[in-house]
Amino acid sequence: MVSEGHPRYASLMLRNKLVEGYERGITSAHGLIAHGRGEAFDYLLGEQTSESARKATKVACAHLLTARFPVLSVNGNTATLVPDEIAELHAITGIPVEINLFHPSAQRIKRIADHLHAYGVANVLTGFDFIKLAHIASDRASVDKNGIFKADVVFVPLEDGDRAQALTELGKTVLTVDLNPLSRTAVASTVTIVDEVTRALKDLVSFAKHFESDGHQDELNLLKASFDNLENLKASYAIMQKQLRSLAR
Amino acid sequence: MVSEGHPRYASLMLRNKLVEGYERGITSAHGLIAHGRGEAFDYLLGEQTSESARKATKVACAHLLTARFPVLSVNGNTATLVPDEIAELHAITGIPVEINLFHPSAQRIKRIADHLHAYGVANVLTGFDFIKLAHIASDRASVDKNGIFKADVVFVPLEDGDRAQALTELGKTVLTVDLNPLSRTAVASTVTIVDEVTRALKDLVSFAKHFESDGHQDELNLLKASFDNLENLKASYAIMQKQLRSLAR
Repeated sequence: MVSEGHPRYASLMLRNKLVEGYERGITSAHGLIAHGRGEAFDYLLGEQTSESARKATKVACAHLLTARFPVLSVNGNTATLVPDEIAELHAITGIPVEINLFHPSAQRIKRIADHLHAYGVANVLTGFDFIKLAHIASDRASVDKNGIFKADVVFVPLEDGDRAQALTELGKTVLTVDLNPLSRTAVASTVTIVDEVTRALKDLVSFAKHFESDGHQDELNLLKASFDNLENLKASYAIMQKQLRSLAR
Repeated sequence: MVSEGHPRYASLMLRNKLVEGYERGITSAHGLIAHGRGEAFDYLLGEQTSESARKATKVACAHLLTARFPVLSVNGNTATLVPDEIAELHAITGIPVEINLFHPSAQRIKRIADHLHAYGVANVLTGFDFIKLAHIASDRASVDKNGIFKADVVFVPLEDGDRAQALTELGKTVLTVDLNPLSRTAVASTVTIVDEVTRALKDLVSFAKHFESDGHQDELNLLKASFDNLENLKASYAIMQKQLRSLAR
C-alpha cells in the first residue's frame, strides 16, 4: 500500500488505476508503456499544471465550443483515467464521443463502449463504420465516418504522432493532451495541452461550464486568435529545464 | 510493422519484446509502465550510451570482479530484455543469479527461473528461502538468504528506490542501471549506470571478458577508488539539458 503522504501518491494511484484498466481489457499493454513515458515527463514538469498548460486548456475549450462539428476522441488510457470527465464534458457540451484506438480490436472497443455507457455517455461512436485516413499505412488510420472524419475540430488526447499529423493535414483543428512537449503530436497539433490527462480534463470541464452559457463568443474567438502553440510549448521546455537544474543540485 | 529505418526502431523493438514478456507472464504490468518511464529518459539522453555511462559500467564491472560474494539480481524486465547477457555474465564470472521481484508471485518467479534456465543460467536463486530486509514494510523487502542477504556487492538493475536505499543502509555496495539520473535509486547507489539496460549489459559483458583474466587487480582497484557516483550522474543531467535545448529549437 502507498500512503497518502508519499511524494508521488497521485502518480502511483493513476498507475494502479491504469493497471486495473489493463486487467479489465480497456487499456492495452502498449498503453501502459505510453503512460510510463508520460509519467517521466510529468515528473520533469513537477507533477503540476503550469500556467501555459492551463492557457492551452482554455484555448482548446474555446475551439470545442465554437466548432461546427467537434468530436471527443477516446482511447483506452483516456477511458480508464478520465471516464467521469469525458461524461461530464459530453453532458455539458453535447459533443459526440468517438472510441478511436491506436491498437484497435473489436472486443476492446466493445468493452470501452460499455465502460463509457456505465459512466453516463449516452451516445458513443465506435468507429465500426469507419473510413481510412490517407498518409497512414497501418490499421491505426481508421476514423468513424460520422465522427472524426467529418469533424472540423477534434479533441484527441494522448494521440500518436502519425495520426496527429494526418488529421492536421486533412485541415482539421487538432486539440491534444501530451506530456511530452517535444513529441510530433505536440508540435503538429493546433493546441497542445502539456499536462497530465486527469488534471487537464478537470480544468477543461471547469472551463466548459464557465463558457458554455451565451455571451462569451467574443472572448472565445479572441482566445483562439491570440494563441501560438509553438510559443506555448516553449514554456513547458523551460519548466523542464529549470526542474532538471533544481533536481541536479 | 515498424521499418528498420524508423528513428526510434531500437526503442520500439524493445517495447514489443517487453509486451511479449508480459504476455508470457514474465514482466509485470507495473514493469511495462516503469519501462515507459525509462524510455522517456532515454529519449532525453539521445538513446545512446554516454561516456559517463560507459565509465560507470566499467566501475560496476570492477566491483563485481573484486567482490567477496557478488550477486546479480534479476527482475521481470531484466529477464525479458537481457537474458542472453545475464547468462553470459554468469558464465564468464560465475556470479550467482537471484530472481528478486518488486511485485513477487510464486508463479512469476517460476516462469522467470524456467526462462533463465532456457538461456543457460544453471544456478538460479529464487528467493523462496528468503529473509526480510529492515526499513521496508512491504512484500518487496524479501531477499534470498543465500543470495543478496549475504552479498557484499549486489548488481540490481532497474531497482526501486526504497530497496536500493535499504541495501545501501545494510552496508552493501549497490550497482544499478537506471535511466533516471534523478531517481532515489540513482542517487542512493554506489555506482549508477545511466543507460538503457540492453546497451549497458552488452558493455558490462565486454568489460567482464576483458578484465576476467588475471593481472588486472590494480587497475580494477583504481577504477573503484577513483569513481564518484554523484559527480558521474551530473554528466547525465547535463546531456539531458543539452538535448532539451536542441530539441526545443
